[in-house]
Amino acid sequence: MALFDNESVNLPALRKKAYNYRWAEVEEDVIPLTAADPDFPVAREIPEAIVEYVEDGYFSYTPKLGLPSFREAIARHLREQKGEEISPELVLPIDSAARGMYVIAQTVLSPGDEAIVFDPVDYLFKNAVLAAGGVPVFFPTKVRDGRVDFSGLEQYITPKTRMICLCNPHNPLGKVYPREDLELILSLSERYDLWIMNDEIWSDIILGETPFLSILSLGAERNRRTLSVYGFSKAYGVAGLRIGAIYCTDGEVFRRILDTSGVLTTAGGISSLSQVAGTACLDKARYWTEAFLEHLRGNCAYAVERINKMPLLSTTAPEATYLLWIDIRETGMTNTGFVEWMKQEARLALVAGSETMFGPGGAGFVRLCFATSREILKEGLDRLEKGILLLKDRF
Amino acid sequence: MALFDNESVNLPALRKKAYNYRWAEVEEDVIPLTAADPDFPVAREIPEAIVEYVEDGYFSYTPKLGLPSFREAIARHLREQKGEEISPELVLPIDSAARGMYVIAQTVLSPGDEAIVFDPVDYLFKNAVLAAGGVPVFFPTKVRDGRVDFSGLEQYITPKTRMICLCNPHNPLGKVYPREDLELILSLSERYDLWIMNDEIWSDIILGETPFLSILSLGAERNRRTLSVYGFSKAYGVAGLRIGAIYCTDGEVFRRILDTSGVLTTAGGISSLSQVAGTACLDKARYWTEAFLEHLRGNCAYAVERINKMPLLSTTAPEATYLLWIDIRETGMTNTGFVEWMKQEARLALVAGSETMFGPGGAGFVRLCFATSREILKEGLDRLEKGILLLKDRF
Repeated sequence: MALFDNESVNLPALRKKAYNYRWAEVEEDVIPLTAADPDFPVAREIPEAIVEYVEDGYFSYTPKLGLPSFREAIARHLREQKGEEISPELVLPIDSAARGMYVIAQTVLSPGDEAIVFDPVDYLFKNAVLAAGGVPVFFPTKVRDGRVDFSGLEQYITPKTRMICLCNPHNPLGKVYPREDLELILSLSERYDLWIMNDEIWSDIILGETPFLSILSLGAERNRRTLSVYGFSKAYGVAGLRIGAIYCTDGEVFRRILDTSGVLTTAGGISSLSQVAGTACLDKARYWTEAFLEHLRGNCAYAVERINKMPLLSTTAPEATYLLWIDIRETGMTNTGFVEWMKQEARLALVAGSETMFGPGGAGFVRLCFATSREILKEGLDRLEKGILLLKDRF
Repeated sequence: MALFDNESVNLPALRKKAYNYRWAEVEEDVIPLTAADPDFPVAREIPEAIVEYVEDGYFSYTPKLGLPSFREAIARHLREQKGEEISPELVLPIDSAARGMYVIAQTVLSPGDEAIVFDPVDYLFKNAVLAAGGVPVFFPTKVRDGRVDFSGLEQYITPKTRMICLCNPHNPLGKVYPREDLELILSLSERYDLWIMNDEIWSDIILGETPFLSILSLGAERNRRTLSVYGFSKAYGVAGLRIGAIYCTDGEVFRRILDTSGVLTTAGGISSLSQVAGTACLDKARYWTEAFLEHLRGNCAYAVERINKMPLLSTTAPEATYLLWIDIRETGMTNTGFVEWMKQEARLALVAGSETMFGPGGAGFVRLCFATSREILKEGLDRLEKGILLLKDRF
């Protein structure tokens, strides 16, 4: 049995354990292609590492800044896989990339400060800014000729702007940014003294030929205002363990992050087992992620081809992520109406491109996750096709 | 081998795994009686539950408000063990009691609001208030005839006071509060419309004859302003797993807690494995805690008797906690100076009653944790005695 065969998908386990709009939260005859979370069990080295750690029965306090071995594994991964030169001393393991984004926003924003948030983008950017008392200013992220058009970005900077939020690769657009775009963002950061919240949670899931390029690879000194997050849920399937990291290039900035994170008082932190699992992900499970990527590339090509043959729908192959951003504007339906229709008529669950989830720019789009077996994906796409044909007949 | 024999203490494991001023952070010939964390491995049912959970290799997203089975286990424990009637719907599992305290302070305080913090008390109260932008106002917590003297408490209430922080049982004083004291605090909350942050992390570790009494047992309606936290580190030895819970009696207050906690966006939350371990603690490991309590009672009596025979030192038996609050004022030393002396001269690590750790009221005291084997405790007390005799000779 290959790792990403249909037989690997343990539906009874998923129905019991997979929440967040997934198998455990939908009716039994519904297929959820919703939250970005694989349907496959993780690399066996991850539970093995956990089992080994728990054997002696000790779950004592861990170091406030995280296990040294974990911090080193993260720094090594960033360096070897992505060319990011970060000292382990400037890596803070934290309980999820999402938490990391909140900590970053709280570290650099004061109430009333503006932060530029791409639109559409994952809702955590907006919410992190709001939780810090900041004001999200939406920059409409339009794709032209396969690239995000940044020509208008500078106009969104005001005297109150303190941060630009960068999602690289971009969820839900599936884009990796070319050097030129990152250069522009970095030069704006330098010119206007802006912080950059750099979310690289998707940086391991590169499907196309364009490699991932981190803004940090443009130089440590130039990135002194860049605060980055990495997460383990997407590339290793461990969302439930809440494993992430914040990292930066400047010691003084790092000390501010420590203060905000609460780790120094033990109010913040990350479970010992999550750190052990995270270390196993990086040190022992790369082969799993590589095989997962091969599987995802096949799923992606298959899904894009099928969807683009369906009436009223269109999509483009993402360069990164395992998410399709599907244009439903020809249906004339709202995205929530469309999602409800698919659930009711075709027993398929998708994520609406709602303002809550992605900002105003999500209007006219829905998101589909293809991190499942080819068989489940095929059944999901059959249902999408059935739903769209019913819809076409109706109007 | 009995659970709490000296042979149960796995020093090589502790030297590798026990941080936060403990074995992994001290020189090899130092005995740490420092952070409140047992030297014993946990009940075997806890790793067993973890091993069982990880077997299928799924670590998917968990429910945003926590696993229903875990919420129910917590509510059942509070009801059966402590007479607290809390609906599982008003229990939020969270990554540590410490985090819970921060969430509570942030939920009810606005910048500039005052909160009454007992002095001395664990530093998390002060820090939670400060992190929320509040102003901690210290109430000197004097013990007279074995009871905390609350006669002056009301005078500390000003028009800006919004919260009273209650540590029940009290760390470091080891006190459980009688009904009369809780009644007073609750009546002040009613009269002045004050929130109560009610920390019950020590409520399972009752050593004396006075039973623990929760302020919540005085009535759900009267406790609508009471926001409580419970933690698993003290009674089950799982500090590294970061397991806690926030609970209250009012649905509207609970919704506000949810908003502040970040669980609705996934920025906040608790690892699936920590929830599984926490459920095993409550459902399967009570026998361990009961045996631990018996062991602790013996250690407590032994340590108190020995310390009170030493020159320049005195202490009283705590009604709760596994901590001794030792009066060192006769030595004429500062608490940090005393702790440094014991570390250098007697190779014994203690916690200074420093302002940082306990507030100004910690002056003249040090804290000793006796959650270890009788043999290690004896060696620690031998060292304390040696150190104090050296000190006496010197002055």
